[in-house]
Amino acid sequence: MARINAHYRKLQAGYLFPEIGRRVRAFAAAHPDAAIIRLGIGDVTEPLAPAVVAALEQAARELGTRQGFRGYGPEQGYDFLLEAIALHDYRARGLEVDTSEIFVSDGSKQDSGNIQEIFGQECRVAVTDPVYPVYVDSNVMAGRTGPADADGRYPGLLYLPATEANQFTPDPPAEGVDLAYLCSPGNPTGAVMTREKLARWVAWARRHDAVLIFDAAYDAFIQDPELPRSIYEIPGARECAIEMRSFSKRAGFTGVRCAYTVIPAELTGAAPDGSRVALRELWSRRHTTKFNGVPYPVQRAAAAVYSPEGRKQTAEQVAFYMENAHRLRAGLAAAGFTVFGGEHAPYIWMRTPGELSSWDFFDRLLERAHVVGTPGAGFGACGEGYFRLSAFNSRANVDEALARVTRAFGG
Amino acid sequence: MARINAHYRKLQAGYLFPEIGRRVRAFAAAHPDAAIIRLGIGDVTEPLAPAVVAALEQAARELGTRQGFRGYGPEQGYDFLLEAIALHDYRARGLEVDTSEIFVSDGSKQDSGNIQEIFGQECRVAVTDPVYPVYVDSNVMAGRTGPADADGRYPGLLYLPATEANQFTPDPPAEGVDLAYLCSPGNPTGAVMTREKLARWVAWARRHDAVLIFDAAYDAFIQDPELPRSIYEIPGARECAIEMRSFSKRAGFTGVRCAYTVIPAELTGAAPDGSRVALRELWSRRHTTKFNGVPYPVQRAAAAVYSPEGRKQTAEQVAFYMENAHRLRAGLAAAGFTVFGGEHAPYIWMRTPGELSSWDFFDRLLERAHVVGTPGAGFGACGEGYFRLSAFNSRANVDEALARVTRAFGG
Repeated sequence: MARINAHYRKLQAGYLFPEIGRRVRAFAAAHPDAAIIRLGIGDVTEPLAPAVVAALEQAARELGTRQGFRGYGPEQGYDFLLEAIALHDYRARGLEVDTSEIFVSDGSKQDSGNIQEIFGQECRVAVTDPVYPVYVDSNVMAGRTGPADADGRYPGLLYLPATEANQFTPDPPAEGVDLAYLCSPGNPTGAVMTREKLARWVAWARRHDAVLIFDAAYDAFIQDPELPRSIYEIPGARECAIEMRSFSKRAGFTGVRCAYTVIPAELTGAAPDGSRVALRELWSRRHTTKFNGVPYPVQRAAAAVYSPEGRKQTAEQVAFYMENAHRLRAGLAAAGFTVFGGEHAPYIWMRTPGELSSWDFFDRLLERAHVVGTPGAGFGACGEGYFRLSAFNSRANVDEALARVTRAFGG
Repeated sequence: MARINAHYRKLQAGYLFPEIGRRVRAFAAAHPDAAIIRLGIGDVTEPLAPAVVAALEQAARELGTRQGFRGYGPEQGYDFLLEAIALHDYRARGLEVDTSEIFVSDGSKQDSGNIQEIFGQECRVAVTDPVYPVYVDSNVMAGRTGPADADGRYPGLLYLPATEANQFTPDPPAEGVDLAYLCSPGNPTGAVMTREKLARWVAWARRHDAVLIFDAAYDAFIQDPELPRSIYEIPGARECAIEMRSFSKRAGFTGVRCAYTVIPAELTGAAPDGSRVALRELWSRRHTTKFNGVPYPVQRAAAAVYSPEGRKQTAEQVAFYMENAHRLRAGLAAAGFTVFGGEHAPYIWMRTPGELSSWDFFDRLLERAHVVGTPGAGFGACGEGYFRLSAFNSRANVDEALARVTRAFGG
């Protein structure tokens, strides 16, 4: 008898964004004339940069020729892309990452969902609350938790509240934990970890022989050069941290799919016999067994992000979204909302007005302003009473959304 | 202390193809003038079809425009591709598969490696021997086996010998097993399951409440219309079988990455409380949590395979490779080898001459003929004494390889 993986049944009903989609579709059906503005899911809206489009087209044409055709590529990624990453994202910032430590993939969602697989079932995992749901759900599916409690929390995980008191960037826990997921700039709060706070995490991980999974999918949005964009800016991080980055937000690749994960050669985990095993070798084994490389045209497109034109064009996209974020932040504050984030991240994290619950504010915002956001409670119990707005949209839509929210809720 | 997934350490040293690569690189370094012909890894060599290139280029240009830009797509795949699959691969052959039962992915390697995740840890798994290594390794990594024995077999898996006596297509086992991986046309043997044999498997699965994982990555190479290309041609298969197909070999997508998995709505597994759970819902949950869709340009390229020009052009590619296979099969037989496969599959499965071991023949073939193949023993203990040659190469290389092999070993 084929038994199912019963851990899947512990998962709460549906991933957050399908539920949002359901409510928006119902509203749109009932109000066909409403011009709904979507600031919910964090999806880019600007067209791909010309340098990226040109690289995609060029690679497609190559594959149509006998000389240029390529079949299976190296699972870890082509050298041309690995070298561009090592040079521009690390060496140019004074950090040494070897190409053998970089694994190109089709997304940070995949990488952050799959990374737990190379760790033992008995590992104790810490996440922030609120949190990007994939970190939690992938550990639930792997059986590292019990069924959810009334707050939607899974026993077995350690939740670290991200609150106004700690600037939405929790300190390391007192108790020992084996794995900790950190996201900076943070999704959903838009909060960035300072160098000092990140150094405390690195020291803690080294003390407890823990591994940090550092998700830097939004690093390109950091405006202050003093804030760390890579965890490897912290001395000692190579011995305790895995880093993930993505082309999704920095270059509009949400529909093109490319990201990468760095696992330094020094980083090890403990085998049952007490010996140390390089995590890079385990991830390499997973990558070669269950993955087959990113499409060649997509790797060429990602490499084009590092060309002189690509860097200029994608920097302009990031600046465009950040101007949206600044407008939202300033406008909402002027309308009387309490707002966070949006300074080094494309997300505004705001208190809901009048002690409304996150989902009640979601419904009211949709009804009164025809604007879609994301309920903070969808990211964890500590997100209750908060709300996320994304800066990914056209300028006109952002300004219009702000005007409508101000009319509906301001003053 | 971060403990590793110790099951990974049970895996035998290295995946087969890296070891082949190592030996070939060593030989090439020692013999820089040797014109090595690679019939080892099953990778296509013909350029992408013009219809596919045009679709990739067109989609890239679309993403560069405000009107045409698309970010995150539906995780399961765009309707335009799901509908083309349902129409051309199923409805046109008299089979009904709903678009909600199709999951587009970036490869059958990924799908066949990941599918075990939705099943319980305690499931007993059957594989053929020889076998595509991913089915085995992914179950080892998940902890369903003990460490490998002296033959490289993992206790906990049931190996079904694929031998000359059973035409390399084993019958179902007498004992109860929960999951069985079947590949037809088979990799590495090139053997195709007849309708009668497949019907025995479907009846067996229904009797034992087992699930069949049917890998049809090579279905396009079947020449005889009487042979089943889909397991759903067998009545009752919708209640017991998952099917996987790929664009890799049928349309040259090994470097472009697109495949799909079908899970019929009726197909269920058992929960611990005895209730039945739709496997489609579990896979959907996995797909939406740990995957983010195939690149939009790649989905457009896959859809172009079904256009009138795409169908004609890719059929010509398949016919080209099959003519290679026929030449290899006939030529090797004329040279005195005992050959199998190659009639409905791009693989020739041959006995090694003079009772040579698979790896000894590999080395001798490389030394004497400068031809690379794949040792049968790399696919399992029952592959010992056999050898796989791939028909994926230019006509000139196939003819030259055949001439060299005949000179070196013939007569």
